[in-house]
Amino acid sequence: MATPVKRPKIVVVGGGFAGLFSAKQLLKRLGEHADIEIISDINYFVFQPLLPEVAAGTINSQDAVSPLRSLLPHAMVRLATVVGVDTDRREVKLIQGQKRKLQSLAYDELVLTTGQETRLSMFTGFDHHSLTMKNLSDAYHLRNHVIQCLEMADVTRFPEIKKRALTFVVAGGGFSGVETMGELVEMIHRVRHQYPHIGAEEVRTVLIQRGDRLLPEMSPQLSEYARKDLEKRGVEVWLNTSIHSASRYSVCMADGRKIPTNTIVTTIGNGPSGFIQSLPVQLCRGKIQVDRCLRAVGVKHVWALGDAALVPLHNDGEKECYAPPTAQFASKEGQVLAENIRAVMEGREPRPFVYTAKGTLASLGGYSGVAEIYGFKFTGIFAWLLWRFIYIGMLPGFPAKLRVSLNWLFDYFMPRTIVYMNENNRPATQLLNYATGEIVHEVNEVLEGFYVVISGRFERTIPGKDGEPDRVRIFNCGDSWGERCLADHRLTIGQVKALEDGEVLLFRADDFERFRGAFSPFDKLLTRREKTTGAIEI
Amino acid sequence: MATPVKRPKIVVVGGGFAGLFSAKQLLKRLGEHADIEIISDINYFVFQPLLPEVAAGTINSQDAVSPLRSLLPHAMVRLATVVGVDTDRREVKLIQGQKRKLQSLAYDELVLTTGQETRLSMFTGFDHHSLTMKNLSDAYHLRNHVIQCLEMADVTRFPEIKKRALTFVVAGGGFSGVETMGELVEMIHRVRHQYPHIGAEEVRTVLIQRGDRLLPEMSPQLSEYARKDLEKRGVEVWLNTSIHSASRYSVCMADGRKIPTNTIVTTIGNGPSGFIQSLPVQLCRGKIQVDRCLRAVGVKHVWALGDAALVPLHNDGEKECYAPPTAQFASKEGQVLAENIRAVMEGREPRPFVYTAKGTLASLGGYSGVAEIYGFKFTGIFAWLLWRFIYIGMLPGFPAKLRVSLNWLFDYFMPRTIVYMNENNRPATQLLNYATGEIVHEVNEVLEGFYVVISGRFERTIPGKDGEPDRVRIFNCGDSWGERCLADHRLTIGQVKALEDGEVLLFRADDFERFRGAFSPFDKLLTRREKTTGAIEI
Repeated sequence: MATPVKRPKIVVVGGGFAGLFSAKQLLKRLGEHADIEIISDINYFVFQPLLPEVAAGTINSQDAVSPLRSLLPHAMVRLATVVGVDTDRREVKLIQGQKRKLQSLAYDELVLTTGQETRLSMFTGFDHHSLTMKNLSDAYHLRNHVIQCLEMADVTRFPEIKKRALTFVVAGGGFSGVETMGELVEMIHRVRHQYPHIGAEEVRTVLIQRGDRLLPEMSPQLSEYARKDLEKRGVEVWLNTSIHSASRYSVCMADGRKIPTNTIVTTIGNGPSGFIQSLPVQLCRGKIQVDRCLRAVGVKHVWALGDAALVPLHNDGEKECYAPPTAQFASKEGQVLAENIRAVMEGREPRPFVYTAKGTLASLGGYSGVAEIYGFKFTGIFAWLLWRFIYIGMLPGFPAKLRVSLNWLFDYFMPRTIVYMNENNRPATQLLNYATGEIVHEVNEVLEGFYVVISGRFERTIPGKDGEPDRVRIFNCGDSWGERCLADHRLTIGQVKALEDGEVLLFRADDFERFRGAFSPFDKLLTRREKTTGAIEI
Repeated sequence: MATPVKRPKIVVVGGGFAGLFSAKQLLKRLGEHADIEIISDINYFVFQPLLPEVAAGTINSQDAVSPLRSLLPHAMVRLATVVGVDTDRREVKLIQGQKRKLQSLAYDELVLTTGQETRLSMFTGFDHHSLTMKNLSDAYHLRNHVIQCLEMADVTRFPEIKKRALTFVVAGGGFSGVETMGELVEMIHRVRHQYPHIGAEEVRTVLIQRGDRLLPEMSPQLSEYARKDLEKRGVEVWLNTSIHSASRYSVCMADGRKIPTNTIVTTIGNGPSGFIQSLPVQLCRGKIQVDRCLRAVGVKHVWALGDAALVPLHNDGEKECYAPPTAQFASKEGQVLAENIRAVMEGREPRPFVYTAKGTLASLGGYSGVAEIYGFKFTGIFAWLLWRFIYIGMLPGFPAKLRVSLNWLFDYFMPRTIVYMNENNRPATQLLNYATGEIVHEVNEVLEGFYVVISGRFERTIPGKDGEPDRVRIFNCGDSWGERCLADHRLTIGQVKALEDGEVLLFRADDFERFRGAFSPFDKLLTRREKTTGAIEI
C-alpha cells in the first residue's frame, strides 16, 4: 500500500468578499490537489450593499445573506474566532464552539481577509451610543431600533421625548451613509401612516458629511444630484461638518451645533482589528503591507487582500496608488491570489495584481440612484434599476438572488412590515455618556440600575414637600448611587442631572440584584458603605 | 357649540388570539361609539401554531407574524407593559418607552387577555437551561441555537462535546411539543448534508411525555399514529416519563435516566403571570375566575378571556367543564365578549358563552400530520395539507397569508438556509446548574467570567508538573473564583468540577472587568480578599 501523500493545506481567514472569492478561486484552481479551509466567526457571507435595505425592512434579514457552506460546498468551513498566527510554526490559533480551549490549525499557505473594524474612540461617546452598519446583526438591530422609536413617539406624552425619538442622524456621506439614509427615509415614509400621532413634519433626518460633497468617490455632478434628491425628500444634508461627540440623548458637532436624538448611525471610522495588529506582519495605514503579488511583506507563506491589506496598484507619478476597499477589487484580488498560490506551489513566479474599476453605483432609496459606468453617468430611476440589476448579478448563490428579487417584488406591492422584535441584548454593565444638562433620571421613575460616575459631575436633587429642591448632592468620579432604591424595589425620589459632559457605568437592575444576592462580600460592602457614608436614597 | 360627549373607552390588555379578536369584534360592534385601545408589550400578533416552523427555518421569522397596527387600523395600539390595575379608580398602570415613569390610563371597560407564563421553577435548572416556545424570539432563538450546535459538532475534536451538541430533547408531548420535535427533525434532515463531519446516526432526538400517549387532546388512535411516525423518523419517544432537572450539559428524568445535551426545549409548565397575580380578582387554578358571560368575578367593569381566564362551559354531570386554551375558543370568546360589552353599555343583559370545538389538528413535519374534524380522523399527508389549509385560513391579515404561503412554496424547492445569527444576548450575570461530575472548566481554557457558588460543592484541581493533581481546593456555598485569572488575561491553570448537583452564578468576563474597573470599592474588596484568603489562581 502506498503511503498517502500529504495534501497541502490552504487556510483562508475571513468570510467577506475577499475571503469568499479567494476560497472559490482556490477551489477552482487547486481543489483537486489541496485542502481549502475557510474560517469565519459568522457562518454566512454578507453582501454589504444590501444591508441598508435590510435595515429598512425591504429585504428580510435572512434573505440578504447566504451560508458559506452552501456557497463553498467543497471547502471545509469552520465557525471559529482566530486569535493569532504563529508564522514560524505555520499555525493558526483559534477558539471555537463551547470548549473555550485554544486550538492550533496547521497551514501551508495562509490567506488573511479579515477586513477592518469600526474605530470610533476618537469621538467621545460614539462607541457607546452610535449604531454601526457592518454586518447583518447591525442592520437588523437598526431596523428594530427605528421601529421602537416610532412606537415610542406615537404614545409618549412628552414633546421632548417625541422629538428625540423622531430625529435620525447618519454620520458619513460615503456609499454606506448615503444608502442607509436613503432607505431609512423611504422606510419611515412607507410606515408612518400606521402611527396616527406622528405627523410627517415631525420626523427629522440629518446626514452629516465631513467633506464638501456626498459620495466623494463619484463625480461632483452625481454628488450634487444625490444631495438634491435627499434634500427633496426632507433630509438635512450637513456638508463640511465634523462630528465631535455623542451622548445618550444627543450628538454634538465640532462647531458646537447639537442635535437631540436617540439614533446616530455611523458609517465612518475604520481601523485595523486587534487580530491584525497582533500579527508579525508590517502594517501601513492600519492595513497589512503586501507586495504587488499580494504576499504579506516580511513573512513567508502569508497572503493578504481585501480591506485588511494595502494592495499597491501602480505609481501615479510620484504618488503610490492603492486598491480601494470595494467588492469589485476584492473579488478580482481573490482571482489573482488563487493564481499566484498555484504558481508558487508549482514553482512558477506569481504575477502582479492589475485592475481598473468598471464603475460605481449608489442607491438613494425611493426609486432613485446615481451611477457611473465606464465613464457614463446615470441618475434617477434608471440608475436605481441599474444598481439593482448589477447587484443581483454580483450576489453569490442562486437561492439568494431569487430570494432578494422576490423580496423586492413583494416590497413593491405589499405594506412594509413594522414587526418589532425585542432583542433583549442590552449588556448588564454599560457605559453611558451624558452631555451638560441632560437628565439621567427624574423623580418617580423605575431606576434602571446601579450607577458609578466615571467622569464629569452629576447633581442629585431631592424635592421637598413644597416642591422646592430639598437636599442636593454632587456625585464626582468614583461616586455611585442607586443601591438602596433597587433593594427597596421602589421608584426614584430624586432627579439626577449632568452638570458637565460626563460618563457613567450603569449596572442593570436585574443583574446587579442577582450578583448582590449571590456574592455576600459585595452585599456587605454596599451595606457598610450605606452606613458609613450615610448614603441617602435616590 | 355643543360640548363633545365623552366617548367610552375600552382597553384590551394583551395582543394574542383573545386580545386581537376581542379588539376586532369590539371595533366592529362599538367602533363608532367607543374608543378601543389595545396594549401589548410586543407590537405584533403571533400565530402560535407557526412557531415550530419558524424554529425550523421553514418560515422567515418576520413573515410568521403581523403588526397589530396593520391588523387593527382603527384601534389605538400602545406598545407598553401593564404593571397593575386600580379597579376602584378604573385605571391601568403601565410603563412605556424610554421614560420609565409609571403612567395611568383610564378605562370604562377593561378586557384582560394576557395569557399565561411559562413556570418551570418546580424542575431544578429548567429556568436556566431550557428553551421555551412561546413567542417569536423563542422560535428565532431555538433556530439559531440548533444551527450553532451543528456548526460546533462539525468542527469539534471532542467526542463528548459532539454527542451533546447533536442531542436534542423536547419536553412535553402536547401540540406544541410534538410539532416542535417534528419540525426540528425535518430541519436537521434537510441541512445535515451541509455538515460533512456529522453522520445521520450521530443525531439523537428525544421527546419526553409525562402521560401514556402523545397528543392527549386527540383520540388514542391518532396519538399512536403520531408516535409511530416520529419514531420512524428516528425520534425516541419516552412516554410515562417525568422530567426532574436540567444542568448546563444534561437533562435528568425523575426515574434517574440522564441525557447529556445542550438543547432542552420545554413546552410544559404554564402558570399565572405576576401581573395577573397582583390583580384584585379571584384566581382559580392560576387563572382569572369569570362568570359564563366572561365578567371577572368580584370586580366591576373587568372582563377576562383566553388562556388568562377560567371560562366555564357547562356542567358535565357533577364536573364543571372549562374552555380549553386554544385559538378556536379564544376567537369565539372574543366575539361573545364584544357582544356582551355592547349589551351592558346599552343596558341589556349579556349572554353566556357556549361553543363546541370543530376539531383538532397537529403537523408532524416531513409532510405528515394528524387531524380530527367533526369526528372524522385523518392522518399522513392529507392531514398535513389540511393543517396548512386551515391554518393559513385562520392566520389574520392578507399579507401574512401570502407571505407564509410563499415561504412554504419556497421551502419545497429551495435548500433550507443555515444562516446563524449571533445574537449576543447572553445576560452578564447568569445562574448555571451543574450535575455531579460535570466540568465547569478545564485547564488552559479562556475563563468565561467570575464564578460564585450558590449551592452544591465544586472541586478545583491544579495539576503539578508531573500531571498529577497538585493543589486541590473545595468551593462551597458563597465561595468564588476567577478574579485573578481574568485580571491577568490568561488561560485557566486549574480544572473545576461539580462534586454534587449545584448552582453557580457566572458574572461574564467583559462585564465583570468593566465593573471592577469602574467601581473602586469593589476592586479593593477583591484585592483585599486575594491577600487575606490567599486565593490561588485558577
